[in-house]
Amino acid sequence: MALVGFLSDFGLKDNFVGVVKAVILKINPSVKIVDISHEVRPQDILEASFILKSSYRFFPKGTIFLTVVDPGVGSKRKAIIVKTKDFYFVSPDNGLLSLVLKEEPPLKIVEITNDKYFLKPVSFTFQARDIFACVVGYLSLKEPLGNFGKVISSFKTLELPPFQLKKKTLEAEIIYVDRFGNLVTNIDEKTFKDFIREKKFKIKIGRFLIDKLSLNYTQAEPFKPLALIDSFGYLEISLKENNASEVLKLKKGDKIKVELL
Amino acid sequence: MALVGFLSDFGLKDNFVGVVKAVILKINPSVKIVDISHEVRPQDILEASFILKSSYRFFPKGTIFLTVVDPGVGSKRKAIIVKTKDFYFVSPDNGLLSLVLKEEPPLKIVEITNDKYFLKPVSFTFQARDIFACVVGYLSLKEPLGNFGKVISSFKTLELPPFQLKKKTLEAEIIYVDRFGNLVTNIDEKTFKDFIREKKFKIKIGRFLIDKLSLNYTQAEPFKPLALIDSFGYLEISLKENNASEVLKLKKGDKIKVELL
Amino acid sequence: MALVGFLSDFGLKDNFVGVVKAVILKINPSVKIVDISHEVRPQDILEASFILKSSYRFFPKGTIFLTVVDPGVGSKRKAIIVKTKDFYFVSPDNGLLSLVLKEEPPLKIVEITNDKYFLKPVSFTFQARDIFACVVGYLSLKEPLGNFGKVISSFKTLELPPFQLKKKTLEAEIIYVDRFGNLVTNIDEKTFKDFIREKKFKIKIGRFLIDKLSLNYTQAEPFKPLALIDSFGYLEISLKENNASEVLKLKKGDKIKVELL
Repeated sequence: MALVGFLSDFGLKDNFVGVVKAVILKINPSVKIVDISHEVRPQDILEASFILKSSYRFFPKGTIFLTVVDPGVGSKRKAIIVKTKDFYFVSPDNGLLSLVLKEEPPLKIVEITNDKYFLKPVSFTFQARDIFACVVGYLSLKEPLGNFGKVISSFKTLELPPFQLKKKTLEAEIIYVDRFGNLVTNIDEKTFKDFIREKKFKIKIGRFLIDKLSLNYTQAEPFKPLALIDSFGYLEISLKENNASEVLKLKKGDKIKVELL
Repeated sequence: MALVGFLSDFGLKDNFVGVVKAVILKINPSVKIVDISHEVRPQDILEASFILKSSYRFFPKGTIFLTVVDPGVGSKRKAIIVKTKDFYFVSPDNGLLSLVLKEEPPLKIVEITNDKYFLKPVSFTFQARDIFACVVGYLSLKEPLGNFGKVISSFKTLELPPFQLKKKTLEAEIIYVDRFGNLVTNIDEKTFKDFIREKKFKIKIGRFLIDKLSLNYTQAEPFKPLALIDSFGYLEISLKENNASEVLKLKKGDKIKVELL
Repeated sequence: MALVGFLSDFGLKDNFVGVVKAVILKINPSVKIVDISHEVRPQDILEASFILKSSYRFFPKGTIFLTVVDPGVGSKRKAIIVKTKDFYFVSPDNGLLSLVLKEEPPLKIVEITNDKYFLKPVSFTFQARDIFACVVGYLSLKEPLGNFGKVISSFKTLELPPFQLKKKTLEAEIIYVDRFGNLVTNIDEKTFKDFIREKKFKIKIGRFLIDKLSLNYTQAEPFKPLALIDSFGYLEISLKENNASEVLKLKKGDKIKVELL
């Protein structure tokens, strides 16, 4: 029984997600589909890439990931299947896979061109339904990878916004705000610990000062921000039982400076 | 293994959707349920009818559609099962099925009256749980249609708002705004092309002018609206990488005029 | 085939829900998971408890409920499995189960301590993934309850806000506002009917007066509020085809007085 992990920016208001699932199940009724999220910020490829990277390794081996954030739908951007050691990824070739493929090197990349597998007529605006869902359906039936198109050797890449590392300061950027208002930065655990090396530090946020790393969300006084390494391995600013983004008025793209004392 | 397509205005905040699924699975644990949407505007029967019509044909043959937008719950409106060539529809008889049944003529309509299949006591406010879910569960177990009640010959109908077609102008109405802010009108592809017949046209929207049909969302300059036939076959106004509804300040019910030059 | 009912405050924007499901399915690919809701107000344990109590009895016998609203994650609060006659509940021990366990007495309570079943390293901030999901996975494979930790004899309890019952007045509190804006109070059907005993009553809300109990949402004039016993058995204030919470400016925690005439 094949498992599909489905990530998109389609939202849940429209019928997009349901129709894509219908197309997959029409081809292979035994597939099980798990939604990763459909609330990626519209057309934010990098956010999708970050969420995928934070999710894929918890899925069973053999999972087929269908990942569609596709501002270039209907234009000349490629559609690809990437096989790695443990997984398949079906996606527009627009950088969405770049963060995950740094950790899971691609063993084979196929450009999807064989329209034998497509719903006809292929629309110019909803290829998740007409192309990607079909490919996922047939792939889950063990159709050989090479049947979908020709092998290619590269894929488009995007990078997380870089942090600024100086001798005494590390400037982080908020790359994601979760449902609870927690502020996820672009500093992974290793970068942070290599920078700190058990020295004292401070993070100034408005009128607040954070001077230690907490283990969990309860280790702070109410209404005082705390810093921790979150469950995905990144430095995160949080507020105990509160929404840090709203209270501290910080959002995606804002900068946070860590200073050694 | 039976497939159920589930459409409602229940939202995902409450337990309504989960409880309906629980009741179905208690009767038939092997059913697979695909959510079409639960974010239909509360009590907007026509919106549900449009979404259903745009969705059903992508589902496998034999799919049972459970469609509940039900402002008249507990009153004298009927509950019905409609069998068509390829599908079953279980719904309040309030017009929700009218658009789909124009395309898929009903072969048999049954008024649901046999309370042997209901959860008791039947509540007056949540019959999706106490009646519809139960009927879907037993229908998926191949219970004969006639066991649920008596055959009837008609069902309630609603129409999309009409467009105004004159010699040189076609006045469209926005009938749906999707998650991306795209503005779906009541003009289907055939109506539009019969009106245009390869002549030049213009659509004036505020200070913007659209004078051609695009194939996809990328075929426009940023911040300039474009018109296209969308993936469901209707004329749609859109903004490249932007939210047309917000930027153009247009919403459901607003009019858009297409003029021949 | 095991069924899991999943309730949390994780929302659907992030990948939390999808990752928890992935972990369960990695352990037992045949599990079926039904979402009850993931839109519980962040960290509102009592709201989760009320939703669970309103939902569990519609699920098949043997259902495993995974219920995570967990402001104390990573602190010393316990993680527990509770077995009742018909169900299993896997939850932080913070009061979330208190309302359901009043109706379904616990037959066995186990404190989850055996880290053989956990994802390593266990994070301090996402134990739904690293502990609860794993336990649900193995429990669905019929792992004996005692293997997860030691039997304990009590669990943490919370109460709904109390109502004020006097000779001629009953003061209710709004404990939940649903997607349609219906105002659910803490007065169950029995309490209400014992208080009224077929006498005349009034409920004053702003400039409106309710003087009878309706059976369903259609039994009122538009824009006039009505009172009914809702599908979960509680006194509810509603507005026909409208959002009572918005129009009447009433929200969770507000009081409503029922007076005998």
